[in-house]
Amino acid sequence: MSTPASPDWASLSAGLRARDGVACQWRVAAAPVGNVRPTDFAWHEEPMPSPGEGEVLLETLYLGLAPVMRMYMQGTGAGGARKLSVGDVIHGRGVARILESRHPDWSAGEIVQGQIGWRTYATSAMTAQEKFFRVTNHDLPYALACGVLGMPGLSAHAGYFACGQPRPGDVTVVSGAAGGVGSMVVQMARIAGASKVIGIAGGPEKSRAVKELGCDEAIDYKSESVPERLAETCPGGIDYYFDNVGGETLSACLDRLAMGARIVLCGSISGYTRTTPFGITNYARLRSVEGRMSGFFVYNHVGRWDEVMTEMAGWIRAGKLKPVQDIALGFERMPEALSRLYEGKNIGVQCCRVRPEPRHQGGS
Amino acid sequence: MSTPASPDWASLSAGLRARDGVACQWRVAAAPVGNVRPTDFAWHEEPMPSPGEGEVLLETLYLGLAPVMRMYMQGTGAGGARKLSVGDVIHGRGVARILESRHPDWSAGEIVQGQIGWRTYATSAMTAQEKFFRVTNHDLPYALACGVLGMPGLSAHAGYFACGQPRPGDVTVVSGAAGGVGSMVVQMARIAGASKVIGIAGGPEKSRAVKELGCDEAIDYKSESVPERLAETCPGGIDYYFDNVGGETLSACLDRLAMGARIVLCGSISGYTRTTPFGITNYARLRSVEGRMSGFFVYNHVGRWDEVMTEMAGWIRAGKLKPVQDIALGFERMPEALSRLYEGKNIGVQCCRVRPEPRHQGGS
Repeated sequence: MSTPASPDWASLSAGLRARDGVACQWRVAAAPVGNVRPTDFAWHEEPMPSPGEGEVLLETLYLGLAPVMRMYMQGTGAGGARKLSVGDVIHGRGVARILESRHPDWSAGEIVQGQIGWRTYATSAMTAQEKFFRVTNHDLPYALACGVLGMPGLSAHAGYFACGQPRPGDVTVVSGAAGGVGSMVVQMARIAGASKVIGIAGGPEKSRAVKELGCDEAIDYKSESVPERLAETCPGGIDYYFDNVGGETLSACLDRLAMGARIVLCGSISGYTRTTPFGITNYARLRSVEGRMSGFFVYNHVGRWDEVMTEMAGWIRAGKLKPVQDIALGFERMPEALSRLYEGKNIGVQCCRVRPEPRHQGGS
Repeated sequence: MSTPASPDWASLSAGLRARDGVACQWRVAAAPVGNVRPTDFAWHEEPMPSPGEGEVLLETLYLGLAPVMRMYMQGTGAGGARKLSVGDVIHGRGVARILESRHPDWSAGEIVQGQIGWRTYATSAMTAQEKFFRVTNHDLPYALACGVLGMPGLSAHAGYFACGQPRPGDVTVVSGAAGGVGSMVVQMARIAGASKVIGIAGGPEKSRAVKELGCDEAIDYKSESVPERLAETCPGGIDYYFDNVGGETLSACLDRLAMGARIVLCGSISGYTRTTPFGITNYARLRSVEGRMSGFFVYNHVGRWDEVMTEMAGWIRAGKLKPVQDIALGFERMPEALSRLYEGKNIGVQCCRVRPEPRHQGGS
């Protein structure tokens, strides 16, 4: 099989322009097979929507990208989201300004984050299902609400702390370490007192990035043997493994667990586009080391939103947590930005700036 | 492939006789491939051993059988045990009377349990490695020290309680439910207030047995579809799965987990004789239900021996925990008794009575 030609994303967005006063959307044109392709997306324009009684009108500032969106497009209803069909607007969380409000709890001018969908303008009844939150840290860039101060940040925090229960001194391994959640977990492990942090990522640029974030060692899975490098870097075994990729990497870490080890299953991007699922044959290693492998469902943790975001914002201001974001410019490039996740191109949280960041409401 | 003829265990033990004053042993003749065969075992006789300074002379009363013994015979050093080679006496825990003591901490006449090996008489330095404990519940049969009041009992207790952390109301599934550990866990789930207990076992006789132990439902994996029966019996999902078998059964349970479910990995007998290991492809189900899969290493829990055994003995006396043991008669039949585990023939803890139970030292 020859390598497929790189998809022509430039042609997809050529001639498109998100502009004031026109509601632009990206919709599902076809359920993706493997990574997304330009033909999976359809651009759509509508007149400006008008908020009904109990609704607000949102003007999108940023939209975040997450691997799960490809699964939404396949109609899986992953994470409890409404299942999509061809022709539906793609699900996605983002940051928006309220232009107009006919809702008693929300006011025009407020900056919010929540389930907007891939739209430049949207009306919303701000239901519990859409999980909207006010953006309160006006001294920090609003784009962070797509990352550290958004659902990816809650995922990293809930996964690393509540689910994995780190202990000071843990030899900690993070896969997808240069990715959105991974780049935060690496830094949280430092905050929590890990004795050693090893980041697994693909390519020299990402390896440099994870070391800059605080990893003692970087393993480049594209050019190095992960099992061999784990043996070298964790001679006493792994105490804590935060898994963003699944598959062979998870299996290699299972083989090197130390007594009492914990594994947190956060993502398995290696499996999302696989046609034959990978089977973990060495799961019984958990027995001999009295280990634990746990998953978490981020929406179970939204009740702790304010507490977690306050802590995260504090770490950012104190310089302990450096937000890493990969910001694509322009709503027109959303499909390409999603594709970057599956190509492993993004460093940090992938998001898209839909319009220039407004003057901040307060702070510096 | 035709079904292989049933091994001729009668020929192996024909003419052999464990008798007073002769030290009989079973040794490794060959590393087993698949289930054990008569040619894997060698009978050996020696003159009575004499305890050296700091040693005791033990007279074996009962020996317990566990699936791990086949792995010992393969030289795997499973569970931290000393690796065996061809010609070595097979590892095994049992109950013995001290005939003679030259050890300051142990007295002649005491009943003990620990790592005796497959021997009718043995000398021992009673090292920490051999994990000897005094048998203290003289009102109860000494054979129980191979089961509920022995290492299998500690496994069931540590696995079910400490590792799995049951919650009242748990819909609980136990595989290998008619086996040594499984038959205890079923009853512990009742003690802990499970709302429903489903036992998975093979064949109608075992299905009856697990219902008598307190299961609301029995699933006969030999004649029924485990996934279908789990769907019927656990419509709201499984809260707690105690896994004694691994493989397809573990996979079927992963598919039916309820939010917050816990899986305890205790054994994976389905995998021990497999040449191609089974791969779990649906482990990521732990993510969507915020579930946990934990293993435990029983030797990490021996520090709680007295506490656990006191509780277990109390449950036996109160009629809450019925010991289930499958006692083969005669040391000559040890190899056949081990084979029964892999053929799924035993109900409860498989053990072997080496000589008649002595008059109890106290109690009734």
